[in-house]
Amino acid sequence: MEVVLLGSGNVATHLGHALLNEGHKILQVYSRAQAHADALARTLRAQAISDFGTLTKEADGYIIAVKDDAIASVVAQLPSPLRGVVMHTAGSVGIEVFGARVVRYGVLYPVQTFSKAKVVDFSTIPVAVEGSDEETYGWIARLAGNLSGQVFRCDSKQRLSIHVAAVFACNFTNHLYSIAADLLEEYGLDVDLLRPLILETAEKVMDHQPRDVQTGPAIRNDERTMQKHMELLENQPDLKAIYETLSFRIGGKGVSGKV
Amino acid sequence: MEVVLLGSGNVATHLGHALLNEGHKILQVYSRAQAHADALARTLRAQAISDFGTLTKEADGYIIAVKDDAIASVVAQLPSPLRGVVMHTAGSVGIEVFGARVVRYGVLYPVQTFSKAKVVDFSTIPVAVEGSDEETYGWIARLAGNLSGQVFRCDSKQRLSIHVAAVFACNFTNHLYSIAADLLEEYGLDVDLLRPLILETAEKVMDHQPRDVQTGPAIRNDERTMQKHMELLENQPDLKAIYETLSFRIGGKGVSGKV
Repeated sequence: MEVVLLGSGNVATHLGHALLNEGHKILQVYSRAQAHADALARTLRAQAISDFGTLTKEADGYIIAVKDDAIASVVAQLPSPLRGVVMHTAGSVGIEVFGARVVRYGVLYPVQTFSKAKVVDFSTIPVAVEGSDEETYGWIARLAGNLSGQVFRCDSKQRLSIHVAAVFACNFTNHLYSIAADLLEEYGLDVDLLRPLILETAEKVMDHQPRDVQTGPAIRNDERTMQKHMELLENQPDLKAIYETLSFRIGGKGVSGKV
Repeated sequence: MEVVLLGSGNVATHLGHALLNEGHKILQVYSRAQAHADALARTLRAQAISDFGTLTKEADGYIIAVKDDAIASVVAQLPSPLRGVVMHTAGSVGIEVFGARVVRYGVLYPVQTFSKAKVVDFSTIPVAVEGSDEETYGWIARLAGNLSGQVFRCDSKQRLSIHVAAVFACNFTNHLYSIAADLLEEYGLDVDLLRPLILETAEKVMDHQPRDVQTGPAIRNDERTMQKHMELLENQPDLKAIYETLSFRIGGKGVSGKV
């Protein structure tokens, strides 16, 4: 397939390389900032553009991989009509964002966190697909199936639920790591101490349901330990509140034993 | 060394096998429930006991690996005097729990989560050590150093801070996985979808500081996306509250953009 990438961030970068590796051709990389378009286009052997006037109308697919709240404005600037399939890659943006400007459209949402620093194996990433009609769905699903062994169909509401779940399992989890690191630092200790524990906690749910492997004082209703923890957090009311809320949800009882 | 294990749960089991593998001898396994003592003692080629009257006074070390709030009662039932070193393995229990009943005592706290289902490599587990005096500290540190390459000294207050940090990084993290799994289930989807993301999130902090790899709508101050997420959580006020609290901590702004 001949594809245009609209966006030059982490998703565009990883997706572009995965497509190239599978033998697809990236015709153009668009970014508002020409330098960003240049940098990614170079590694993808594509043309860099920063002006919608120079966008080719001849691609088979157009992949919009920009920030969620910039998708609508990219759609609004697409030349009309386009014969190719226009897709976005976001979790939280409904398919209705395409409005009437394009004929064939849909979503290719890779459920993964991408960062500049780290290469991920695209073939293991679940990809949620949605299409404006059966044929377009099939087209996007085939493209996604080329990159990943885990392609599945879901509607915009389900996709939003995945995105919310991902915020809990990824973004909020990383923030808990951050809280833990700060706590250790406060007592002259290094986050290194917790790295094996962090990895083990994630690995444990690879073949178990999270609720079946819950450990810690809250699930044991060990009030004395929770009380000691709360005392250590005495001067950090926001952490205390998070501790209380999550402990209550885990154990069904409050830190003070109250239901 | 000749060691007695007091306890038959996950920590006792993993520690017992690690000691045996390093050539130590487990003399006895104590549990209040004789059947539990029997089961673990059999795999460790040790004697099973459930009565403190039959506890040997000849061991080099006694490792108390019971629930945090049961440690004091085990200490109170030890025969006096014991010439060996008595240790507990808990994060949240201060060294003062040993009182005056034993002469040489301390702590050997492995910073890891142990479960029946999963073997962990003890050699990579950080172990926090504390001792009643320099010589006893040295003795426990050597024993710990036999099992793990990451032994470090810390006092009871620091150890408590590690335990609190571990609750955030492990117990609460697992609960966030659980919340995510429940959300997906509600929309007819499986937690499988999030497994690559969960693992990637943990792996990313193996060589980065968590705060440096934070992603998601909160760190981008993407209010529109956060608003959509809150709407999806409309009927789950406890999840909404967690979402708001953690998003605020991450972004420094509320979901509604208010500081």
